[in-house]
Amino acid sequence: MSPIDPLVIFTPSGKRGRFPAGTPVLTAARQLGVDLDSVCGGRGICSKCQVSPGVGAFSKHGVTVSADALSPWNAVEERYRSKRGLAEGRRLGCQARIEGDVVIDVPPESQVHRQVVRKRAEAREITLDPATRLHYVEVEQPDMHEPSGDFERLAAALEAQWGVAGLTAGLDILAGLQAALRKGGWKVTCAVHAAGGAPELVSLWPGFHEGSVFGLAIDLGSTTIAAHLCDLQSGEVRASSGLMNPQIRFGEDLMSRVSYAMMNPGGAVEMTRAVREALGTLTAQIAAEAGIDPALILEAVVVCNPVMHHLVLGLDPVELGQAPFALTVSGALNLSAADIGLPLAPAAKLYVLPCIAGHVGADAAAVALSEAPNRSEELMLVVDVGTNAEILLGNRERVLACSSPTGPAFEGAQISSGQRAAPGAIERVEIDPATKEPRFRVIGSELWSDAPGFAEAVAATGITGICGSGIIEAIAEMRMAGLVDAGGLIGSAGQAGTARLVPEGRTHAYVLHDGRETGGPFITVTQGDVRAIQLAKSALYAGARLLMDQMGVDTVDRVVLAGAFGAHISPRHAMVLGMIPDCPLDKVSSAGNAAGTGARIALLNVAARREVEALVRTIVKVETAVEPRFQEHFVNANAIPHATDPFPNLAAVVTLPAPSFNAARGGGDGGRRRRRG
Amino acid sequence: MSPIDPLVIFTPSGKRGRFPAGTPVLTAARQLGVDLDSVCGGRGICSKCQVSPGVGAFSKHGVTVSADALSPWNAVEERYRSKRGLAEGRRLGCQARIEGDVVIDVPPESQVHRQVVRKRAEAREITLDPATRLHYVEVEQPDMHEPSGDFERLAAALEAQWGVAGLTAGLDILAGLQAALRKGGWKVTCAVHAAGGAPELVSLWPGFHEGSVFGLAIDLGSTTIAAHLCDLQSGEVRASSGLMNPQIRFGEDLMSRVSYAMMNPGGAVEMTRAVREALGTLTAQIAAEAGIDPALILEAVVVCNPVMHHLVLGLDPVELGQAPFALTVSGALNLSAADIGLPLAPAAKLYVLPCIAGHVGADAAAVALSEAPNRSEELMLVVDVGTNAEILLGNRERVLACSSPTGPAFEGAQISSGQRAAPGAIERVEIDPATKEPRFRVIGSELWSDAPGFAEAVAATGITGICGSGIIEAIAEMRMAGLVDAGGLIGSAGQAGTARLVPEGRTHAYVLHDGRETGGPFITVTQGDVRAIQLAKSALYAGARLLMDQMGVDTVDRVVLAGAFGAHISPRHAMVLGMIPDCPLDKVSSAGNAAGTGARIALLNVAARREVEALVRTIVKVETAVEPRFQEHFVNANAIPHATDPFPNLAAVVTLPAPSFNAARGGGDGGRRRRRG
Repeated sequence: MSPIDPLVIFTPSGKRGRFPAGTPVLTAARQLGVDLDSVCGGRGICSKCQVSPGVGAFSKHGVTVSADALSPWNAVEERYRSKRGLAEGRRLGCQARIEGDVVIDVPPESQVHRQVVRKRAEAREITLDPATRLHYVEVEQPDMHEPSGDFERLAAALEAQWGVAGLTAGLDILAGLQAALRKGGWKVTCAVHAAGGAPELVSLWPGFHEGSVFGLAIDLGSTTIAAHLCDLQSGEVRASSGLMNPQIRFGEDLMSRVSYAMMNPGGAVEMTRAVREALGTLTAQIAAEAGIDPALILEAVVVCNPVMHHLVLGLDPVELGQAPFALTVSGALNLSAADIGLPLAPAAKLYVLPCIAGHVGADAAAVALSEAPNRSEELMLVVDVGTNAEILLGNRERVLACSSPTGPAFEGAQISSGQRAAPGAIERVEIDPATKEPRFRVIGSELWSDAPGFAEAVAATGITGICGSGIIEAIAEMRMAGLVDAGGLIGSAGQAGTARLVPEGRTHAYVLHDGRETGGPFITVTQGDVRAIQLAKSALYAGARLLMDQMGVDTVDRVVLAGAFGAHISPRHAMVLGMIPDCPLDKVSSAGNAAGTGARIALLNVAARREVEALVRTIVKVETAVEPRFQEHFVNANAIPHATDPFPNLAAVVTLPAPSFNAARGGGDGGRRRRRG
Repeated sequence: MSPIDPLVIFTPSGKRGRFPAGTPVLTAARQLGVDLDSVCGGRGICSKCQVSPGVGAFSKHGVTVSADALSPWNAVEERYRSKRGLAEGRRLGCQARIEGDVVIDVPPESQVHRQVVRKRAEAREITLDPATRLHYVEVEQPDMHEPSGDFERLAAALEAQWGVAGLTAGLDILAGLQAALRKGGWKVTCAVHAAGGAPELVSLWPGFHEGSVFGLAIDLGSTTIAAHLCDLQSGEVRASSGLMNPQIRFGEDLMSRVSYAMMNPGGAVEMTRAVREALGTLTAQIAAEAGIDPALILEAVVVCNPVMHHLVLGLDPVELGQAPFALTVSGALNLSAADIGLPLAPAAKLYVLPCIAGHVGADAAAVALSEAPNRSEELMLVVDVGTNAEILLGNRERVLACSSPTGPAFEGAQISSGQRAAPGAIERVEIDPATKEPRFRVIGSELWSDAPGFAEAVAATGITGICGSGIIEAIAEMRMAGLVDAGGLIGSAGQAGTARLVPEGRTHAYVLHDGRETGGPFITVTQGDVRAIQLAKSALYAGARLLMDQMGVDTVDRVVLAGAFGAHISPRHAMVLGMIPDCPLDKVSSAGNAAGTGARIALLNVAARREVEALVRTIVKVETAVEPRFQEHFVNANAIPHATDPFPNLAAVVTLPAPSFNAARGGGDGGRRRRRG
């Protein structure tokens, strides 16, 4: 490099240097440490190194770029453009050579460590850096006089051309190696998995592999199993899919499944088989949806609660059913997808996030990874609402975790008209405080039930029941409209002044929708429904409060509602109900399926695996089952919103009426609660 | 330590030091680096740390040991003695404490790195240092407030108590972990495999595991499969067993099996299945013979030629059938036994030695490990005689290797009365040069056929055929008795002067045994047999000669005959036949199944694996198939012993008659040879 050599400036990094005329742009980028991708290693095949050279005066950089600053298109570049096309203004970084001072922009899609787009502004960034990468290599042909194996020559090529040292491979991959090398004329594309240990060859293709490769981020819940199929080269979610956990037939909540394993010889094995089959179905389903061969899925990441963790891994969960709730293994696991029968590529890998404790699983670890309370200045409460609620409280200083047995009511189970969140389910409810008349929205339509065209809009799905977010809004709205008192008792038509309150045995129910005339359902919110939600929300609140005690605080700065259905809870309704501690309403946000997102982060960024493993070791675990104050918090949290804790932020925006329908019965039921679920 | 502390001297190491009174012998040994075993970690359970304290004056060491130099028997030691017994004079090193100056002998069986006994004086030592070791640990019980997994606490215990860091385990092992820990009262015996990578838990037992654990050293030959079951704690061979390779039905020699794979879709898969099934049978057979549960076999080492290597690993061998004979993988492989369907312990490991070249396999590497030409001052020729001969030539400076297609004649195949070495087979032959009458010995009896009682001794087995060593001796004896000329032609009864020569078509045969009167076989050595042996021995000699050319020598200092049948070849007969180059007869020795021994060494000493891997990288490979001189050497080697090379050492001890039964036909057949086998 000499002062008269052309000056090259890369944007957006701003990295600059002088290179002898004729230096390929890719070479200059590598020497400067500019993040410019390449799978083919500069052979003009993969087009991953596309750049956008600028022309004209760049006063900011103090250079003027002439039209001939880069070499003319060569034959390789022309062939690529004519065969595959290149966007206007783009050049192949490996072919275009530097001839004069130039400013070269590396577009996001050409960056190896590009940012993966996330919808929420406050969410942590995801930098693409997957464990599994593609490398195109040219392998030396065999030589009788230097009789190394084909695999050894491939490994040497990967080391020389890509710096991948110490390659390993299983027999499945070795079995296809010789044919692939010969078919590709000693050129192959290798998928190499490197996640800390020795790099492993997990797939290979003769010649240059045109398409992408994929990973599966799986959130294995007690009730539902959700998966994202991610493109490992772009970070994009290519398809998302879900299905019910077939283990529901062995017990709705986790403890009933543990009991099933205890009471039935072979029960655990049977449940393992069921969930593995479901994962197989889900894999096929998601691959079909994305229109890809499942053999292109080279990796999976699984997050789940401790009981599902044990069951999917084929470990007996009985110890999780009794104190001290000992996990077989708590650390992260690096396995083969085949170990749990996942029908991906034969050599595909599997990463299972670490569990935090016997009741706080890899799903909670994934939520911690996604929501990163450990990176927060503010004191942040994260509740992952599902059949079991996982609760995290913390900031940069310290993170605490517990789980709380909310039961399945928040998911629509044990609710008289409850159903899971699916088209036809009532998901939003409003009750006019004056008329006590409701309106609602159902999943599948954006229209409210009092809007013109609603009936037509829902004709296809019908109005079938109430999902978890719907029942929460309904009860919160009933509380705000004075139909339910602080103790959770539903008033009679006479007491509350609306004919929508109908007797049901010795209690009352609120009629949300009467479809009986047209053969549809009669959807009410019953006293039993209110009691079920009270139990669930008390458990959730008590868990959060226990962590706050441990942290020595009475308030939190921010609340994040996570969980598949957390995305749909209105913060105001959650607070009216007293599900979460009082907090400014604009500081309550929904993170959606944060556990699933955490799985996706671990899939797309290998460093995030080390991060979550380290984080889990530092998280302070609180065991609700043996904390005497949990019971006290639980009883006090039964009232709506709460018997003793003040809710000043809520009071500032919502004025709650104060009826009392039966003083003698208010606030009861606190002692009746299920354990774990 | 102070000068007035008692002085402790360990023998045989001679290590010495002063320790405060009350120091347990095991502690003193560990601090001095004395090689004293312990599985239970000093808890008085395993008795592996037994020592023999001396009493009286030890002038050599300058100490006098009083009777109370060690503490009296404590309760633990007494209990061990009463329950399990302790040999006279033995103490438990972990219980006996040092009270005065003492000389303590560590008997061989208490040494961790004890020497494994080998029969041959010249053989390399084997130091016991297996990859798989047992450790007894006490594990912390789970604590709800520190909710680590049972596995993490076990790993921590192994690190704290045994220095085993970074333990891993597969799901099979994890599945049994919780039950084992609880059954053993938080005390378990772990089998940990550590062979370079992360240590892996491969088996565990509640409490202290009383018995031993085992490894299988497998020599997978084209024709026979042999295995040794070794005790990994003592190094002893507990059982040896073998069976025919069932792949013989797909082709007797290796090339016909490669052809089978090429010609028949699925043929390779079929052969893989056959050999894996045979290994399963062999495992069951050897475990039954030793009276052990196959689940106690925690490790296997396999050596084999390249074609068997590929077939047993499920790799298509077709590339090995044509130049450049490219192996799929040449390096050593660290696999799971389950990867090739070996029915050992579920998590048992498998080590496959590296191949040297496309024709020189892991079996040759194992021979190199066992016979260690690379450690020899003398120039050493090692020939491993089987269906294919592997040949090594070298010394400390340099080792060369090749393989030569001898075909199966040396194993009794393609011989008119040939059979494999089994009871009833003629294995030794002598022919009286004056009377031309033979006598012989058969496998199963020590008696010669002319000894009284021979008929009774062989009544059970009969006299069934001639095995490989028998045919070599028979033809060499025929040559020495003047019944066969240098060209390999058998004379007629008239020419050679014995009625034992009978016409057979246009040629003659020598009657070794006529059992027809009693319904037994008529065993002759035919002209075809001589030709078959000539082809085989020419190939063997030509290979050795090619290496000698490469090395630039005309003679070698030492010859080692290896191979299952190498053990039975008489050096004198081998040299008369011209199988091996001329050399002082006392410098020709038999190494027995050196490949099997190499497998056993790699099983018992983990450092030997690194040694053979490094050695293989330095061995110079010579490809006989493309060396033009091989053909020339082959033709010249057809004569018995040789057409052109002098055999001065042989001439000094044996005077060969020089008949010529048909000058016109002598020395022919040189061009007719099989390729590879």
